[in-house]
Amino acid sequence: MLELFKSIKLDKNSGAPLYMQLFNVISSMIDKGTLLPRTKLPSIRQMASLLDVNTVTVVNCYRQLELKGYVYAKKSSGTYVSTVLPPVDKKEYANKYDYVDKNVILDEIYPGEDISILTSKIRFDKKTINFASATPSSNLFPVEDFKLVLNEVLDRDMGNAFNYQDSQGYRPLRFSISNLLKEHSVNCSEDDIIIVSGAQQGIDIISKTLLKDGDHVITESPTYRGAVAVFNSRRAVVTDVELEEDGLNLNLLEYHLKKHRPKLIYTIPAFQNPTGVSYSKSKRKQLVMLAEKYDTYIIEDDYVSELDFENKNFKPVAYYDKSGRVIYIKSFSKIFMPGLRFGFMVVPPHLKKHILGAKHATDISTSGLIQRALDLYIRKGFWHKHFYSMYETYKNRYTKVVNSLEKYKTDNISYKKPGGGLNIWLKLPYNCVVNSLLERAASNNIVFTPGRIFFSSTSSNLNNIRLSFAAVEDDKIEAGIEKLCKLI
Amino acid sequence: MLELFKSIKLDKNSGAPLYMQLFNVISSMIDKGTLLPRTKLPSIRQMASLLDVNTVTVVNCYRQLELKGYVYAKKSSGTYVSTVLPPVDKKEYANKYDYVDKNVILDEIYPGEDISILTSKIRFDKKTINFASATPSSNLFPVEDFKLVLNEVLDRDMGNAFNYQDSQGYRPLRFSISNLLKEHSVNCSEDDIIIVSGAQQGIDIISKTLLKDGDHVITESPTYRGAVAVFNSRRAVVTDVELEEDGLNLNLLEYHLKKHRPKLIYTIPAFQNPTGVSYSKSKRKQLVMLAEKYDTYIIEDDYVSELDFENKNFKPVAYYDKSGRVIYIKSFSKIFMPGLRFGFMVVPPHLKKHILGAKHATDISTSGLIQRALDLYIRKGFWHKHFYSMYETYKNRYTKVVNSLEKYKTDNISYKKPGGGLNIWLKLPYNCVVNSLLERAASNNIVFTPGRIFFSSTSSNLNNIRLSFAAVEDDKIEAGIEKLCKLI
Repeated sequence: MLELFKSIKLDKNSGAPLYMQLFNVISSMIDKGTLLPRTKLPSIRQMASLLDVNTVTVVNCYRQLELKGYVYAKKSSGTYVSTVLPPVDKKEYANKYDYVDKNVILDEIYPGEDISILTSKIRFDKKTINFASATPSSNLFPVEDFKLVLNEVLDRDMGNAFNYQDSQGYRPLRFSISNLLKEHSVNCSEDDIIIVSGAQQGIDIISKTLLKDGDHVITESPTYRGAVAVFNSRRAVVTDVELEEDGLNLNLLEYHLKKHRPKLIYTIPAFQNPTGVSYSKSKRKQLVMLAEKYDTYIIEDDYVSELDFENKNFKPVAYYDKSGRVIYIKSFSKIFMPGLRFGFMVVPPHLKKHILGAKHATDISTSGLIQRALDLYIRKGFWHKHFYSMYETYKNRYTKVVNSLEKYKTDNISYKKPGGGLNIWLKLPYNCVVNSLLERAASNNIVFTPGRIFFSSTSSNLNNIRLSFAAVEDDKIEAGIEKLCKLI
Repeated sequence: MLELFKSIKLDKNSGAPLYMQLFNVISSMIDKGTLLPRTKLPSIRQMASLLDVNTVTVVNCYRQLELKGYVYAKKSSGTYVSTVLPPVDKKEYANKYDYVDKNVILDEIYPGEDISILTSKIRFDKKTINFASATPSSNLFPVEDFKLVLNEVLDRDMGNAFNYQDSQGYRPLRFSISNLLKEHSVNCSEDDIIIVSGAQQGIDIISKTLLKDGDHVITESPTYRGAVAVFNSRRAVVTDVELEEDGLNLNLLEYHLKKHRPKLIYTIPAFQNPTGVSYSKSKRKQLVMLAEKYDTYIIEDDYVSELDFENKNFKPVAYYDKSGRVIYIKSFSKIFMPGLRFGFMVVPPHLKKHILGAKHATDISTSGLIQRALDLYIRKGFWHKHFYSMYETYKNRYTKVVNSLEKYKTDNISYKKPGGGLNIWLKLPYNCVVNSLLERAASNNIVFTPGRIFFSSTSSNLNNIRLSFAAVEDDKIEAGIEKLCKLI
């Protein structure tokens, strides 16, 4: 063992400090596996005498090795080689286009049979015209600004950012959010807000609080399948109600409320996913009244109401709620960074204690570091800056999609301009087989999401597709729509 | 409005760049609220002519303002004042000793009636001798090293770190963990590992996968109440079985297995929380056999097996499992940073698909940034370095607690040396009223956790207390134990 070190040659005349020369030799022995993890290095005295150098040289070298993670010191025992693994191959993991993109789609639609068409038959690469993803592409994320606040938080709060956090959420962040929410006509204080790890967790925690086996839940048809997956996981009975152009069919809704006495109504009232439908003011109000009348709760999933390109200025359903029937859930995933896993709920006071208990039992709290960084991000005004840039980007894409559709679509393709959001819902001709269209489009490098994915299995109205424009590059939109219209 | 700016005086002879002078004036107007959020600033031309400066000066100033978050540019519209909130008062939130510490306790014991004694009657301050918290104090966290890897990840992966992530977890991290696990005698590949947001979420997701209303679950008595809270939230029927000095009473266990056919057994086989008990090798093996025989699963919550101060070298229960009966859950919260919310599970192959579905429906994935940073932290060898330092710290505290107990305890106080972990379980004399002791100790600045918190309500064996030494400072241990022994 000592032989291994004896053979080390340092060049006293090279000008490079001896301790760095020694560092380079030993670190490369570790990198190559010549020195195995857990190997004990010679003591400082031993090493100095072996190489005929000053002990200070060895001390400095060992300190560098420790700093870079190559070795660790075990108190009153010695210096040992760490288990250093090879660095992650950036190409292999971080940038693999199809790897990342499949996950984006996996988020949008709950994994199941349906996904296989999108993930197995289609290759994503740089040429793909992606109308399938409703999530912004990574290059739109404000990484530099976020890095800045992360570092400021680490310097400011140190270890406190990493200890257990308040289950309800970091109070200053709740304050920042209550401030932002005023712009969305949601009046609440920081005490009404509960921070969660994404809107998905919000829906899950509400279900945990309110549902037991066999309870009924009402959803829109079509709807976001991730929510249905949660209700199924609680073994609830899910009844879907037809979504009309201005919101749920309220007669049908009341029929089911009477018949099933559901515990929950799940709704996405603004630029609904997948249809783009927004509820009229009147239906928003009536929804709240019906929830009161039939003693049930509404989950309002506000996923992109702020992307209001035609100034519809609808107030959230929660705005009309005077008796604590609406649980308002929001994440910023479509505007900000979905992988942060961050969202929040505004909850009626009488439910707060129960929901907090459920959050605590679920995962104790949401990451303190992320919460603190986000708070600072909002406080510094970065949030607004980023939002306006995203708003412009999305509005531009929306306009391009709508203009191209007007230009190229045939008479038997129909849709309603949603006026905002991230999705356009196309009705295809009766004789168009969506599965076959999916494959033909794929061989032309175009992907979209088949509409049936958003319906429960009992639905028959399946000749729709969802075009999303969150991730598609501006300069590919017109060509993509033109080609797609020809293929239909 | 323009008047407001007209009055600005810049000093062309001061030597300070004009754009910075202008930046200082405008930013302070925003800080003071003279300029309200959403106010439109004069155009660059207007401002330059108002102040009689070059337009470049204004451009540079506006750029600085944007960089610092004071303003945002709205494309083809102008420059607007951001909603800048006052900075967080460090004193108020980040460092408030009692605020942080109450949360530490709230993690350990599920919030409920019991907690009120600890959180309302006791003030935590610098003088407190804290035997209540089983979580390391924040000053032990390796904040600087973690900051280093966070920044390296941000530079390396950029936006990819913030997009939706693989629900199973970042693959390179799973690889790093499978490598670490070899040291714990858990042989698995990265494909068997599922990343979760803390051990608590692991228990929750397993319950979601395996339990439905009315199913039976077996726990140790006493046990970690956070797990019981999860089972209750699934409306399972929890039966507790007496924990002996070498593990569960297996006769009792088999009786309940026969009678109730439970879906799950929840166990903490190494340095159990709260008792410090470790299962014998024989009981570990028999536990697996019984799970096979009665067709049930075992959750092995390995919360601190690595804090093995007397070289017991027990293998995990999962080691003896040949038929996929054990779900091994681990977080590093007690060694690392609990507020990161990070943990993982090693799951039997036939359960993997179902568990992944439940994870996806729960919160889609765990934070990508944290996963990538942790991976790099392990790869660089920082993990081992930190672990050995924590091991030494905890071992030292353990030795101090045990030695002090030997020195000061009276004959009617009894305990078993656990040989590791973070807790000592004391049996008090029959006539000692724990609630009154708690209050007397508190007035002497000593806190501990009453044992009854870890029992279900039907238990009668309540004259115990748990002394934890994760957060108590070395130099307070002996004095604390001496005083406490006198008070009993």
